[in-house]
Formats: sequence, structure tokens, C-alpha cells
Amino acid sequence: MARITSQSEDFSKWYLDVIKEADMAENSAVRGCMVIKPWGYAIWEAIQGELDRRIKELGVKNCYFPMFIPESFLTKEKEHVEGFAPECAVVTHGGGKKLDEPLVVRPTSETIMYDTYSRWIQSHRDLPLLLNQWANIVRWEMRTRPFLRTTEFLWQEGHTAHATSEDAADFVQKALDMYKSFDHDFLCVPVLTGKKSPKETFAGALYTMTTEALAKDGKAIQAGTSHHLGQTFSKAFGIQFQDKDGTRKHAWQTSWGVSTRMVGTLIVCLGDDAGLRLPPTVAPIQVVFVPIWKDDDQKEKILNIFNKLESELKESGVRVHMDDRDNVSPGFKFNEWEVKGVPVRIEMGPRDLEAGNLTVVRRDTMEKETFSADKFEASSVLTLLDDIQKRLYSDALKFREDNTHEVDNVEDFKSQLAKDIPGFIRVYWCGDETLEEKVQNETKATIRIIEEDNVTGKKCFYSGKEATQRVLFAKAY
Amino acid sequence: MARITSQSEDFSKWYLDVIKEADMAENSAVRGCMVIKPWGYAIWEAIQGELDRRIKELGVKNCYFPMFIPESFLTKEKEHVEGFAPECAVVTHGGGKKLDEPLVVRPTSETIMYDTYSRWIQSHRDLPLLLNQWANIVRWEMRTRPFLRTTEFLWQEGHTAHATSEDAADFVQKALDMYKSFDHDFLCVPVLTGKKSPKETFAGALYTMTTEALAKDGKAIQAGTSHHLGQTFSKAFGIQFQDKDGTRKHAWQTSWGVSTRMVGTLIVCLGDDAGLRLPPTVAPIQVVFVPIWKDDDQKEKILNIFNKLESELKESGVRVHMDDRDNVSPGFKFNEWEVKGVPVRIEMGPRDLEAGNLTVVRRDTMEKETFSADKFEASSVLTLLDDIQKRLYSDALKFREDNTHEVDNVEDFKSQLAKDIPGFIRVYWCGDETLEEKVQNETKATIRIIEEDNVTGKKCFYSGKEATQRVLFAKAY
Repeated sequence: MARITSQSEDFSKWYLDVIKEADMAENSAVRGCMVIKPWGYAIWEAIQGELDRRIKELGVKNCYFPMFIPESFLTKEKEHVEGFAPECAVVTHGGGKKLDEPLVVRPTSETIMYDTYSRWIQSHRDLPLLLNQWANIVRWEMRTRPFLRTTEFLWQEGHTAHATSEDAADFVQKALDMYKSFDHDFLCVPVLTGKKSPKETFAGALYTMTTEALAKDGKAIQAGTSHHLGQTFSKAFGIQFQDKDGTRKHAWQTSWGVSTRMVGTLIVCLGDDAGLRLPPTVAPIQVVFVPIWKDDDQKEKILNIFNKLESELKESGVRVHMDDRDNVSPGFKFNEWEVKGVPVRIEMGPRDLEAGNLTVVRRDTMEKETFSADKFEASSVLTLLDDIQKRLYSDALKFREDNTHEVDNVEDFKSQLAKDIPGFIRVYWCGDETLEEKVQNETKATIRIIEEDNVTGKKCFYSGKEATQRVLFAKAY
Repeated sequence: MARITSQSEDFSKWYLDVIKEADMAENSAVRGCMVIKPWGYAIWEAIQGELDRRIKELGVKNCYFPMFIPESFLTKEKEHVEGFAPECAVVTHGGGKKLDEPLVVRPTSETIMYDTYSRWIQSHRDLPLLLNQWANIVRWEMRTRPFLRTTEFLWQEGHTAHATSEDAADFVQKALDMYKSFDHDFLCVPVLTGKKSPKETFAGALYTMTTEALAKDGKAIQAGTSHHLGQTFSKAFGIQFQDKDGTRKHAWQTSWGVSTRMVGTLIVCLGDDAGLRLPPTVAPIQVVFVPIWKDDDQKEKILNIFNKLESELKESGVRVHMDDRDNVSPGFKFNEWEVKGVPVRIEMGPRDLEAGNLTVVRRDTMEKETFSADKFEASSVLTLLDDIQKRLYSDALKFREDNTHEVDNVEDFKSQLAKDIPGFIRVYWCGDETLEEKVQNETKATIRIIEEDNVTGKKCFYSGKEATQRVLFAKAY
């Protein structure tokens, strides 16, 4: 197994090393598309399973729409087509013939879904319409990185329609809250939430809400977004309903999604120099047993002890794995499970066997503890897993808090951004879009979140004008 | 709600009516692609969840490969490209530019996966490699029908590599057995299994094993297939491993899959003139409560009784729904849940309330039974669901047995095929491929399964020559 570049040495290289050594994904023969390998896919399945449960709790139902979109649909909404057309993959031939109208592979599904919604929605009784789909998406990206930005990726996209703007706004917030609690409780990734600046708003939306995490290199990473689409699409696609008062009105809509980028987020927010650190909730294997033996007698005795503990853990619903391979060394195994981020490793070697001990290593802190094998029970492991889950979150939260800085002048702003770990920078801001572009060109930092929208009595850190907003700037993925 | 055409009147129309009235799917703006609506998708999710569990039990891991395949990959295996090229959708432009090499949207993933396998497999220690993916697939079909044949469909495709032909053959059989028990236990659809004739074998395979069900109109429907790929692809893609004896050998491979066609299979094998009949295992809603009231007092009392029973059932893990809509009539509700195939309906109206009764209607037989509401318990429902599951299967099995005919001459063969419900026809057969084509042209029937391969002492029903096989003919979907 190759050495992993340290985070401080070269974070981008560290990221690629972890993905390679943890056997999560690799580049494919198709430009910008990755092969998701079993370890990476199992992590996505855990994310998918839990998110799906939470989405359904919101009363949303799953469905599936075609991945092909007639080109003419995309062009029905001006801002939307401008945002997405340059990134599209286009099917021009099917069944050996040139198609009358080219088909676009979905870069997102608003247009194909809302064309259908216009037939499904007739009365206020048809609202709210709350649907979600799990699908693959294609956006022709110039620069790609496994999980973080790929030409094809997997995601869920929720698409709802409501009778009023307020109902839609409520749902935008509900979806955002769902993502936030999922990020915290399940992924151990603390996120800040708030509105995007107009420049970063989804093509066609009234406004976009976002969840932003902080990677270990001090860059922000957008984990999920929730858009209030207003009546933009309902007007373009004619989604109208007869309201209780008998008048016909256009529906108000939302869309919201997270993708396989979540897996990348997990890596950059929780990983360390030894590789991945997985929350127990997400880990395909939560506890790995590594028996160490010199002769068969030792092996048998250790496996006897381990097998008993293993079945107790399985009964308690813990995902366990017995690594009794005889073609690699114990050191190789330790390294492999550490890189893969398995939360707990239980070892026992010849000397432990003699002393009646076993050693438990927790991946988050790398702390080792020795227990009497007789007295070690499944319940101790459950407590430990619970503690790891909490610790990963609180460590990540502390990291973000330590790396969120309040700044009131351009000089401090620039010197903070020049540091190894730039982090989030909280400033008062005049709301000038041209100025936002200037800051980005000068520093590469963008507004990640508008935290407050009706600020009074403060000066903009850059222009010195009256501030209207409190915002977070950061360099970003 | 519109009347559903009866099966005997026009089976194809009945099929489309059921899909429409049960609100399972509809045609989209894209030729041959359907929109899978929540009721249809929930059925697919049930199938997917259970199959995924069974696939993992075989030691297979999930992964994900790109949906785009470089055109040159497809052409590496002659038979394979001849089989699939005419059905391909081709992406010629991406990111606003013409691509150097066109990309094909996967019609199946052997080529893109095995190109990668050639790098993953180096030693006998890398074998067996057992992977599966859940993915969308595109085949440019001329005639499409929702679920049964669509341009885009959803499926799982398992792809394994082994050290010997025997190991691969064992896995082909394992996958087939897995499908068969799934079809029987979970879907209540009895299937016959066996080898396909060379004409119906997967493009590039040594042989194809199939599961074939019998639809209510007496036509066979292929539900799933499992292919022994031999070394066809390992030679085309250079998948070689160093064996224990130090020599380099080409791997032996299998692939196997089932798709959203399963949903169509369920409809045509279990449905009746009133619509869908869902096995309790598959049903998104297993028990629906329909309270009937004339005044609010009645409504409250009935809902009190129902809510208690509902929570008991939920605690027992039963998927329940309370239909207390006030804008549609009880008759409309009965009809709707019957069309949707919900296994059990529990009704209570004003007269029942007075008498302290409730009425239970089972969808499979439409039998009604009245119980004292006091004494009716969750356990009665569990027993009933179990009975419905068994009954649906045994009814379907009886139908197939009643419609499997042994025939020893051409005249009987043709007259059987001319009947309303032609069914399976079991014959002795000489194995002549040209003759198979002739039979198909004359009768539209094809060999669905080779049941026995080494027959001696029998005459072919058609040619009169020495028979070598016992086969099942049928008209097919």
C-alpha cells in the first residue's frame, strides 16, 4: 500500500490518494466519469437509504422520469437554458437513425418533469404535489474530481408544487432543515445554512438556500441546495390550477437535491492523514476484527473468542467483518482498515491471548485500549460507536468554529484568505453584485451564504458603504 | 374512474387500462420512455429492495459504472456489437462541442465494465469478482409498452468473473435460482427455468438461462436471464489472471439481470378484470381502511375504532392507509383500491357501527367477511395477508399447469396456438435452428425453454426426425 500524501503537504493529492487507497472510485475510460467501487458505493448506499427515509417522512413520494429531455423543453425557460445548455450531452442518433429532434441527457429534471406536472395539476386539490427521484445526471464539466465534480453523477432531486408562494417557501425551508439535520446526525458534518447571493442562485430560481460545510483545507463545500422556483417554470410550462375561489392560478414550485458529492464532502470534512474517518452510521463495516497468529492453535483460539463476540455484535445490529486473510500481514490490515475509515478495530495476538486480553482501537482518535476478553461485551462496542459518532461531529464543529473569522477591512480579509486554512470569513456587505465579482477575481473567494438580509447601522468591509447584509465569504470547492 | 376493458375482450387494452387507472405510469414526451408514477415506482422499490438483499446474500457487492460507453468498446466483440448496435442511442456532442469519439448510452454494461475488470483482475486471488449495479439502460425499441418494453428502463446487472468455466456455470445457476425463489416467494409468480435456444441466446454468451412466466393471456414472458459468457469478453478485453500453477489464463464470466419489466410481469400474471392484484410482500399499501359516514358523529366513532386497529397493525409492521377523503364516494374508493391491487380493505359504515361490526374484503378472491369489531385483532390481518400471498401463488401456478400442453404433432400444435389462451406447449424437438425460424414465421411461437438436452428415443413433433431435446414453445411478450 502506497503512502498517503499528508493534508498539509498537498490537500488535493491527499484527497486523490485517499480515494485510491481506500478503494472508493477510479477514473473511467469516459472523460470525467468515474467508476464507483464497492467501498465508495456502499457509503453512497448508506447515505441514500437514510436520506430516502427522511424524504419520505416529509410526505414526498418517489417516481422516475426519462433521462432524455427534448431540446425544445430546455429552451422554454430563458435563464434555465442559459445556465445549463453549455453543460449538456446531446443524443443526435437513436436506433441507427438521426433523430428529428436532438435529446439532451438531463442536467437536472425541471423541464421534463414540469411539462408533465402541467397535465397532473388542475385543481387546488392536486396540491401540494411532492415528488422526488433518484437519478443519474450529466453535466459536461471542464475540470473534474472524483465525487466532488464529475460529468455523470448520482443524486436525488425533489420537485414540489404548491398553491401559494408561502407554502413553497415553507417547503424550501423544510427540505433545507432535513438536509441540515441529516448532515449533522448522520454524516457528522456540521453545515451552515442560508441564502445564496444572486450570482450563485440556481438558473431560474427566485432564491437558493444552501448547506455549506468546511473542508479540512479551509475551503467551503456546498453539500446541498433547496430552491424557491417561484412561478418561473409554472409560467413557462403552463402549470395552472383552479383555486378554491374559482380562479386559475400558476403554481409555486421548489426543487432541492444532494448528490454523490456528499461522499466527497465526507472525505474532505472528516478525513485525516491516515485516510478516511467514517461515522458509524455511514460505515459499511463498523467493527473489524484482526486476529494475529503465529501457529494454527493460536489462530483457532483467537477466532473462537472473536466469533463469539462477532455474533453478539451482529445480533445487536452492528456491521462487522472478520479479517482472517493469511496472505497479508497484520500491519497491512491495520493500515487498510484505517485508510478505509472503519470506526473500530479489535485486535488480539499471541501475547494478548496468553494474558486474556484484546485491544480496541478507535479510528477517530486512534486511541487504543486493552480489555480483559472475558469481560468485554457487545454493549461496550455500542457505547464506543455512539461516542465516535458524537466525537467526529464535535471535532468537525470545533474545526469550523476555530476557522470562522470576523473581519471588518479588506486588508485583514485578504491576509486571512492567504493563510493555509482560510476558512469562513464573516463580514458586513453592501450587496453590490459587481463588487462581488471583483472580490472573486482578486481573491478567489465568493459569498457562500447570506446570513442576514436586513442589516442596518453597519459599513461594508470592502466598499465602506452602508451594509445591507451579513455574509460569509470563503474559497470554495 | 373509467371502466377497465376485460381481459377476454382485449388483453392489451386491459393492460394499458390497468396501468392508467392504477396510476402506475404514463407515456412521456420522449418516444418510448415512460414516466413511472409513485404507485408504479413504489412497486419497483419493493422489488428492488428485496432483490438487492438476495443479491448481497450471494456475496455480490454493488458498484456503479458510467452510463456512457466509448463506441470503440462496443465493437470489440463481434457478436455483441451486432446484437446491440442497432438499438443504441448515440451522444455526439458534449459541452457544446462535437466529441472526438461518439459515446453510446449503455444498452448493457459488459464492455465498459470488462475493460475495467482487465485491470482489476491480475491473480487467482482476485477471483471470483462478484459485482452488481442498479442502473438505467437504453435500447431503441420499435414497439414499446409501459414496463414490458421501453426505450429507457431500470434494471440490475450482475457481472462476475471466475477462474474456471465450472465456477462460472455454478454462478449462472445460483443467480437463476435466486431469481426463481424471488419470483415464487416474493412476487407470487411461478416461473419455469431452463436454457434458451441458440437463437434466443444473449449476444456473446455461451448459453443463456431464463425464467419464464405465463401471462393470463397465455403468452410467455421472460422475467430474468442469467448468461454464461465463457471467455468471449475476457478474450476481447484481455481479462487475464495468473493461476495457482503460475500460468496466465483468461477469466470465465457471467452476467444476469432483471428489470422494471418485472412490474409488467406482475400485472400480466396476477391481474384480473378489476385491475391489479398485489402480493402483500410487494404492495405499497397492504391494508386500506375505508370509513363510511353520513354525519360527523359517525365519522368520529368509526375513525376511533379504525385508528386503534391501524396503530396495532403499524406496530406489527403492516403498511396501512386510512382513506378518510371527503370529496369522493365510498364506491369510488373501493374501485380505486381494487384497481391498485391493495390486498386487504377494511370497511365500516353506519349500520356496521350500530351492529359493532366491520367488513374485511380480500382483493385476491374479492371475498367479504364480517367480524365483530371488538374481537378483530391485528393478528387476524397478518394471517389473512399470509393466506393471500400463498393463494396468489397457487392460483397462478394452477393457471400455468392448466395451460401447459403436451403435443406430438404439428396439427395439434397449431390448433393449440390458435386458441384464446395458447399457453406453453411441451414437445420433443430435433434442435434444427432453421426449422425453429420456420415455426416462428408460421405460428409466431418461439422456443422459450430447453427443458432437457439429451433426449433419446423420441421423434421431433415437427420434422419427425430423431429428437434431441424436450422444449417449451409459446407465443411470447
